[in-house]
Amino acid sequence: MTVTIAYLGPEGTYSQLAALAYSLDVEQRTGQPVRLMAMPTIPKAMQATATGMTTLTIVPVENSTEGGVTITLDTLWQLQQLKIHHAMVMPIRHGLLSHAQDLGAIGVVYSHPQALSQCQRWLEHHLPQADLVPTRSTTDPLGHLADDNAVAAISSEWAAQLYDLPILAHDINDHADNCTKFWVLKSDTPEVSSQDGQVTSLAFSLPINGPGALLKPLDVLARYGINLSRIESRPTKRSLGEYLFFIDLEISAHSKLGQQALGELLTCTETLINFGSYSVAAIEPNLSAAKARTKATQAPL
Amino acid sequence: MTVTIAYLGPEGTYSQLAALAYSLDVEQRTGQPVRLMAMPTIPKAMQATATGMTTLTIVPVENSTEGGVTITLDTLWQLQQLKIHHAMVMPIRHGLLSHAQDLGAIGVVYSHPQALSQCQRWLEHHLPQADLVPTRSTTDPLGHLADDNAVAAISSEWAAQLYDLPILAHDINDHADNCTKFWVLKSDTPEVSSQDGQVTSLAFSLPINGPGALLKPLDVLARYGINLSRIESRPTKRSLGEYLFFIDLEISAHSKLGQQALGELLTCTETLINFGSYSVAAIEPNLSAAKARTKATQAPL
Repeated sequence: MTVTIAYLGPEGTYSQLAALAYSLDVEQRTGQPVRLMAMPTIPKAMQATATGMTTLTIVPVENSTEGGVTITLDTLWQLQQLKIHHAMVMPIRHGLLSHAQDLGAIGVVYSHPQALSQCQRWLEHHLPQADLVPTRSTTDPLGHLADDNAVAAISSEWAAQLYDLPILAHDINDHADNCTKFWVLKSDTPEVSSQDGQVTSLAFSLPINGPGALLKPLDVLARYGINLSRIESRPTKRSLGEYLFFIDLEISAHSKLGQQALGELLTCTETLINFGSYSVAAIEPNLSAAKARTKATQAPL
Repeated sequence: MTVTIAYLGPEGTYSQLAALAYSLDVEQRTGQPVRLMAMPTIPKAMQATATGMTTLTIVPVENSTEGGVTITLDTLWQLQQLKIHHAMVMPIRHGLLSHAQDLGAIGVVYSHPQALSQCQRWLEHHLPQADLVPTRSTTDPLGHLADDNAVAAISSEWAAQLYDLPILAHDINDHADNCTKFWVLKSDTPEVSSQDGQVTSLAFSLPINGPGALLKPLDVLARYGINLSRIESRPTKRSLGEYLFFIDLEISAHSKLGQQALGELLTCTETLINFGSYSVAAIEPNLSAAKARTKATQAPL
């Protein structure tokens, strides 16, 4: 049976690169063929899996420089029916793609706002004259490069290969260790719930807003000696000052300790969702294997 | 002496509207004239005050639908020399500005990514056919409207008045209570440090990453009965999984209890910054008074 994977397109995005790395792994492990489906937004990619249109979705959830991808967290909470099956941490190395002869000839730099932020010191230093223009993805602006030599885009080496574009400067991100964590999401079915791993992701709202309300769930975790590796607050969207909390715990929810802690958390939260226990792996994209699998021959849009 | 205020421009942004409301208040209270200075980005607005170019800066810090404005938090931590003097919560009501005869004629909607997100359900329902294109501010795209009747922008009633543009649909934000909190920031000088109010904003990093590391500072606050009205984590940008925490406390740091709690927090944090104690006010923008103060006569870039 073919495994279908939704990701934030168009072809050439970092999300596609993560999805390709996961596809190669699935094919090698299971022999099942994999088909990737580019989606225009992160919510649409996640809805594709929630509605059964695709087997799974691969979405960015956190970047080491820019922090949480809030649309991923908000959509996960709203849908309430996707589980996290696996997490992959991929290095993000940005390049400056352009037909310009040198940096001095560049007047405009296009890219996704997160990529522009991740390169802001480099841009201030090397391209102080350039106008920085946000786009929907790091691949969207590549179509403009052929028309105008004064235009550049921040994108990946992968996109440069895919669309046959020159890289004027490599590794322009301000932090050398820049990386993004991606989640592999599946619909919550009995077959899926047997997943297991060392990290558990939860989200909860609090019954009251008073001194110590957030302290109670954190105190439960501390008493069980469970490490909280991440906490992120998101607005409930009801009123300013009301939050949901997304937390990552270094324990399996299937362990005895994990089950006891979750039971206690239920008593001091309003709504508590367990998005699953899963493993986290570092991945290094394989550009030549990725390219062999894709057919892009011209710039997008 | 003239008070100068830096804000995220160009003219017509919600930040300008907040800065104008604050200006009217300063002029009425002190009789001092106020001059506003539009800056191209939030970090540049904040740097203008840090370097003494302007008396103060007004920046968005949190929206009730979209959450924290991470660039404001990150820049505050990096500069380490600005204090929060006051906070203002302003309703954000988006309109659809266009020369189109009706919604069916619209093919493209431009706006800042936060404004597009705040109206996403309205857009899916009323403009499913439209291409959504991100811009740097809610004012940036207004220049395109005159050239093309098939184009619309999400912006404020204030921007529509300022640039004399028709509003095709009012109050299109998905959440009726949509509002944004703005901070009034000043450089940290002895004269400034006498500020006071009911809310204190702190940021800290943790000495270790282990079970209960975050619990210790939160436990200090709970023991003193101090309510934590907000917690937001941001990456340290050193490595994935290392965070700073921005918290708002419902107490003055100048009170005896506040001073004792801050003293204890120093013992269980790595770096602790006190951004000041200040008051929070709800404001309702006065469009006619604002318009009388500004001179915009044509659409921006």
